[in-house]
Amino acid sequence: MILGIIGLGLMGGSFAISCKQNYNFTKIVGIDHNTKHAQTALKLNLVDEIIEFNELHKCDVIVISVPICAIICILKDLSKMNLKKNVTIIDFGSTKEEIIKKCPENIRKNFVPSHPMAGTEYSGPEAALPNLFENKVMVVCNIEDSGKYQVNLALDIYKKIKMNIKIMDAHEHDRHAAFISHMPHIVSYSLTNSVLKQEDKNHIVTLAAGGFRSMARLAKSNPAMWKDIFESNEQNLLDAIEAFEKELKKAKNLIKEKEYDKLYEWMEKGNKLHEIL
Amino acid sequence: MILGIIGLGLMGGSFAISCKQNYNFTKIVGIDHNTKHAQTALKLNLVDEIIEFNELHKCDVIVISVPICAIICILKDLSKMNLKKNVTIIDFGSTKEEIIKKCPENIRKNFVPSHPMAGTEYSGPEAALPNLFENKVMVVCNIEDSGKYQVNLALDIYKKIKMNIKIMDAHEHDRHAAFISHMPHIVSYSLTNSVLKQEDKNHIVTLAAGGFRSMARLAKSNPAMWKDIFESNEQNLLDAIEAFEKELKKAKNLIKEKEYDKLYEWMEKGNKLHEIL
Repeated sequence: MILGIIGLGLMGGSFAISCKQNYNFTKIVGIDHNTKHAQTALKLNLVDEIIEFNELHKCDVIVISVPICAIICILKDLSKMNLKKNVTIIDFGSTKEEIIKKCPENIRKNFVPSHPMAGTEYSGPEAALPNLFENKVMVVCNIEDSGKYQVNLALDIYKKIKMNIKIMDAHEHDRHAAFISHMPHIVSYSLTNSVLKQEDKNHIVTLAAGGFRSMARLAKSNPAMWKDIFESNEQNLLDAIEAFEKELKKAKNLIKEKEYDKLYEWMEKGNKLHEIL
Repeated sequence: MILGIIGLGLMGGSFAISCKQNYNFTKIVGIDHNTKHAQTALKLNLVDEIIEFNELHKCDVIVISVPICAIICILKDLSKMNLKKNVTIIDFGSTKEEIIKKCPENIRKNFVPSHPMAGTEYSGPEAALPNLFENKVMVVCNIEDSGKYQVNLALDIYKKIKMNIKIMDAHEHDRHAAFISHMPHIVSYSLTNSVLKQEDKNHIVTLAAGGFRSMARLAKSNPAMWKDIFESNEQNLLDAIEAFEKELKKAKNLIKEKEYDKLYEWMEKGNKLHEIL
C-alpha cells in the first residue's frame, strides 16, 4: 500500500515518521506546494518521494494535512480525479463540520474525517517529531457516512501508531475544540498583545518566567493556519470566548469589590479541573 | 554563617538546595508552621536542623518564604527580637511595595526585598528542585534603603547560586509582575472555570492536548498564596486585566464582524512578543 501525504509540515511530517516506524506501507510519497518544504521533507527522509498532484491515483491512502480552506479545495480536486476505487482519504483539519459538509458526495465514502489532538507551536517539516502522535487522541467524526473498509483501515493505522481513538459527532467535536484549543489560542494572543501594548514592554518581559512563557506559547502559532480555523468555527469560538469572558469578569469584580474570600473559592473551583484533566 | 529559612515549601526548599550546593553556609536551619512540612524538609535533607522561631538570633541570614500576609507579620515579629546586629533579612514575596512599606523601620537596613522569578505550579517541600533558581531572574527592590553590607551579601548569594540580578523600584516591579505573572494566573483560572461550567466538561477535556494543558497549568497553583498576592497588588492587577480584556474584546469583535484579515494582523502582532521574550 502506498501512502500519499499532502502537506509536509509539522503534522503531515510527524504522521509520516510514525507510519514509517509502525506501519507497513510499501512507500510514502508526499506533496507540498512549498517546494523548499518538499525538498526538506525528502532530505529529512520523512517521505520516500515527492510526487505531483496528478500522480495521487497511485496512492491507497491519501492524508491531507494543510489549512482548512486548502483541505476543502483539495477534496474538490480529488473528487474529479481517477483515484483508486477503494482509496482512503483522511484530513487532519482542526474543525470538522464545515469540511464534512463541503466534501463532494462521490468521495464521501472514501473520506474519514480525523483530527489528531497533538501539535506544537512550530511548523514546517523541520518541526516534525517522531512521537508527536503517540498516546494522543485521534478524533474521528461522522463515520456512519464513511465506507466500512476506509474506517477500518484508518483506525488500524491510528492504533498502530499508538493513538487513542475517539469517535465523535462533528458538531460536538467543533464545540469541544473551541473550548480546548481555539479559544485558548485567542486568549494567548490577547495576552501577548496586551503586554506588547505597554510602553515598557521590553522591561516587562525581563521578568518573564516559566508561567508566562507557557501562557504565551500558543501565540507563537502560525496566524495563517489559525485564521482559517477560527473562521470555520466562528459561532462555537464566540460562545467559548464569551464563557471565558464571563469568568474573567467575575474575577475582576471580586477583586474590585475586595471580595477575596470569594475569589479564593473561585480559584479553588478552577483548581478542580485538574482532577478530570 | 548560618542561614535560616522560614517556610520550607517549593521556594524556600529550592533555595536551601541551591545554597547547599553553591554557598558556604556552615549550617542551614529551617522553620515551618506546618510540622509535617518541617519534618519532610529535614528528611529530604533540605535543611540540617528544624529550629524554633525564638532561635533565629543564631542566624546570619534569614530568608522569609511564605505568603505575603505572613511575611508582613514575621517582619514585625523579627523587629522585636534580639537578632544579630548585621543580620541580613530577605523575603521572597511576589509583590514588593506593600511589604516594603510595612517593614518596621528598625530592621529596614537589614532587609533586602527580593523576588525570584521562578516557580512551578506545585507546592510543599517535596516540590523543591535543585535547579529552580539557576539562570532565573532575582529582582531586588529599593536597595537604597537597605544596608550596603546586607545588599552585597544578598547579591553575592544570588550570584553564587547562578541567578541573574535585576535591581528595580518596587512600584515598577509590582506593575510588571501584574502583567507577567498575576494577571496570567487570573486568566488561567478563568479558562479552567469556563470549561468546568460546561455541562459536558468531562467530554470536553478528553480532547485536551499540550496547548490547553500549558494554559491551564497556572490554575493548579495554591489559591491561598495567590489570594494574598492578588490582594497586595490590586490596582496593578486590575489594570493588567483591563489591558488584556481590551485585546480579547478586539479579537471577539473582529471575529463577530468576520474581519479575518484584521484578525490575522492582530495575531501577527501578538507573535512578535517572542522576538523580545
